[in-house]
Amino acid sequence: MSKPLRLGLAGLGTVGTGLVKIVQEHADVLAARAGRMIEIAAVCARDPSKNRGVDLSGYDWVDAPLELARREDVDVVVEMIGGSEGAARDLVTAALEAGKHVVTANKALLAHHGYELALLAERHGVGLCYEAAVAGGIPIIKSLREGFAGNRIDGVYGILNGTCNYMLTAMRETGRDFDVILKEAQDLGYAEVDPTFDIDGIDAAHKLCLLSALAFGTQPDFDSLEITGIRGITATDIKFAGEFGYRIKLLGIARRIDGQVMQVMEPCMVPEDSALGGVEDAYNAVYVDGDSVETALLTGKGAGAGPTASAVMSDIMDLARGTVLPVFGIPADKLAPPCWMSLNDVVGGYYLRLDVLDQPGVLADVSAILRDERISIESMVQHGRNPGQPVSIVMILHDTAHAAIVGACQKMESLPAVLAKPCFIPIEEL
Amino acid sequence: MSKPLRLGLAGLGTVGTGLVKIVQEHADVLAARAGRMIEIAAVCARDPSKNRGVDLSGYDWVDAPLELARREDVDVVVEMIGGSEGAARDLVTAALEAGKHVVTANKALLAHHGYELALLAERHGVGLCYEAAVAGGIPIIKSLREGFAGNRIDGVYGILNGTCNYMLTAMRETGRDFDVILKEAQDLGYAEVDPTFDIDGIDAAHKLCLLSALAFGTQPDFDSLEITGIRGITATDIKFAGEFGYRIKLLGIARRIDGQVMQVMEPCMVPEDSALGGVEDAYNAVYVDGDSVETALLTGKGAGAGPTASAVMSDIMDLARGTVLPVFGIPADKLAPPCWMSLNDVVGGYYLRLDVLDQPGVLADVSAILRDERISIESMVQHGRNPGQPVSIVMILHDTAHAAIVGACQKMESLPAVLAKPCFIPIEEL
Repeated sequence: MSKPLRLGLAGLGTVGTGLVKIVQEHADVLAARAGRMIEIAAVCARDPSKNRGVDLSGYDWVDAPLELARREDVDVVVEMIGGSEGAARDLVTAALEAGKHVVTANKALLAHHGYELALLAERHGVGLCYEAAVAGGIPIIKSLREGFAGNRIDGVYGILNGTCNYMLTAMRETGRDFDVILKEAQDLGYAEVDPTFDIDGIDAAHKLCLLSALAFGTQPDFDSLEITGIRGITATDIKFAGEFGYRIKLLGIARRIDGQVMQVMEPCMVPEDSALGGVEDAYNAVYVDGDSVETALLTGKGAGAGPTASAVMSDIMDLARGTVLPVFGIPADKLAPPCWMSLNDVVGGYYLRLDVLDQPGVLADVSAILRDERISIESMVQHGRNPGQPVSIVMILHDTAHAAIVGACQKMESLPAVLAKPCFIPIEEL
Repeated sequence: MSKPLRLGLAGLGTVGTGLVKIVQEHADVLAARAGRMIEIAAVCARDPSKNRGVDLSGYDWVDAPLELARREDVDVVVEMIGGSEGAARDLVTAALEAGKHVVTANKALLAHHGYELALLAERHGVGLCYEAAVAGGIPIIKSLREGFAGNRIDGVYGILNGTCNYMLTAMRETGRDFDVILKEAQDLGYAEVDPTFDIDGIDAAHKLCLLSALAFGTQPDFDSLEITGIRGITATDIKFAGEFGYRIKLLGIARRIDGQVMQVMEPCMVPEDSALGGVEDAYNAVYVDGDSVETALLTGKGAGAGPTASAVMSDIMDLARGTVLPVFGIPADKLAPPCWMSLNDVVGGYYLRLDVLDQPGVLADVSAILRDERISIESMVQHGRNPGQPVSIVMILHDTAHAAIVGACQKMESLPAVLAKPCFIPIEEL
């Protein structure tokens, strides 16, 4: 058996603690699977005295994360500090420069600096592994980089944030509105006190960047990604979606269209009996469309100590077994620079809700605007009639360019009888 | 860039042809991903003159598969002949002995001879890869061996035969009986003229063996696997299942119970809104229960040229990238010998259908038998009442040992009013 693989752990939150448990409890089987022992050489965390429910007494504690990158007895630095800058970025950079492998769950770091870090890792011939950064325990990074390596990937569609999916599911099941469900999720610990990263789609967008880079061989590009979160989703829209047989999901989409690639993070409607429509609560899922594999769906827990530590451990096992692959599937210096298709040109179906005063001529005005933008209506509902009162008109629109629906909504908003900004949600018939 | 990886292809059916297409059409991206070219050095098939829709003129044709194992210019033998004995077994054995990697889609071969072949491969330090042998394009072998390598796997549940799943779905949707749907599936080419391998669960059982070996570190053991196919499933049972909120699926189950492991292939009822309940038509799916990852579900096309070739190609890419792992996750000489928990001791819920004459006292007799076997009833339905006529009594039974339900059914069968062998189907509340 080869010599042990020695880890330096930076950060001992729930994931770090979960990882220590795996290393301790499964030492024998991990060694059998990897052909060598997996050992923890050193650890670093803010509060060494805190009771974490695992025995950490046998490990060397270092004062600063950067020390892990300098230690002779560390082969792999496991970064579980988080954040795209500061200590995490410094540690990962230093570790790679010191010729150490890095395993991280840090999607923000890689979304912002993944390209430079991948170049650095590959220059030093070490691994930069991040299975845990996307969709928790689901082996989607491995699947895209290895399992589907024979495919031209045509699309990746992900439910990548458990908090959002939990909230959308709860809104649908209870009929309650966003603010109420958010408060509840916060009380239950499912949403952060500052929920911005989750509900505004930023966390999910970090993950999409990485999937997109892997799928299409492009440099991860967070800055030009268009992101819409779920704050604007109302119980009304969820209810109407149901009437048309759809569910609303916050979807990260990266797909190939006529040789170009587009990526976007936004709430979409998907058929309720479709693969992604059935992914509820805090589950994550990634739907992959490849030219040979056709379609595949991977579903599982997207967060939590166990699933995330499982993913971190899978990276460690790869390194222990000697597997070091290009960070984004092809050598970093061959990754194409960002060049995304404009969303304006993307064509698809839409859900459109207009809150209007129920008065003669409204529908004629709305129809005329749609006609002028060459948008045609597939179906329409309007519940009740209350002359002179506000009422919602909801339409499912046939395939239309994004620019056209935006243009139509702007014109509709200026109609006197239209009471609020029209709400439109793309439909993905997956 | 390293020197090319050179393939010798044995068998050019739909999968072989699909593989050639991938190698030809994606040469550049495969080389970028693998760091070396993937080349076809030689091919072998029964009828070289047949038009397969791909240009095969550039390759060396050999007369016998075994020649591929002897050629200096072949690094990887890709076995797509099929069958557990004969040419396929001879070729794989010879290739491994010659120190060549083997990639195969041959589940029968590995289910019967996987242990010896794994020992052989590992003795020669070469890879024996079989992603395509289980669940087509779904990267389940890779996920179990690598993605979930940090887990103690507690259970694997698979819908592993597309023909059976297609038929069960069609029976449910049309209400028609097994024979009618089988005929239809044969006419459509979804079922073989001799459908035994599929509908009797043998093909799926081959696959389960491999999953089970990987999940639990045991020698693949086909011979002691208990297999029940779908011939006994009636439209009546599918209809009743629906009334209780279940769907019938042919499930391969390997799971850990109190430190022991059981494996079985049989039709089961699963909740219709569960992860596996939603897997319909020709789709395959594997549900994995691990101590860290919790639950994960992988779904996709289980057969067909594209998905299977995609899986074969992923193995080839692994080899091109230098990844050679223990065939069944741990070194073959450490695989535990077969030692399965007796199904008699497995406890679970059951569906029970009794066809009886509607006459006084029947239910009393049946209830007494259940009481004597300490089986309790969760719910029961009986449609209509036709005194003196046959009627179906259907029950959902609380958790009970397999041996008890078998015993109860034997006793019931001997009651004068019971008209046929009672039908019982296990329920998996996944």
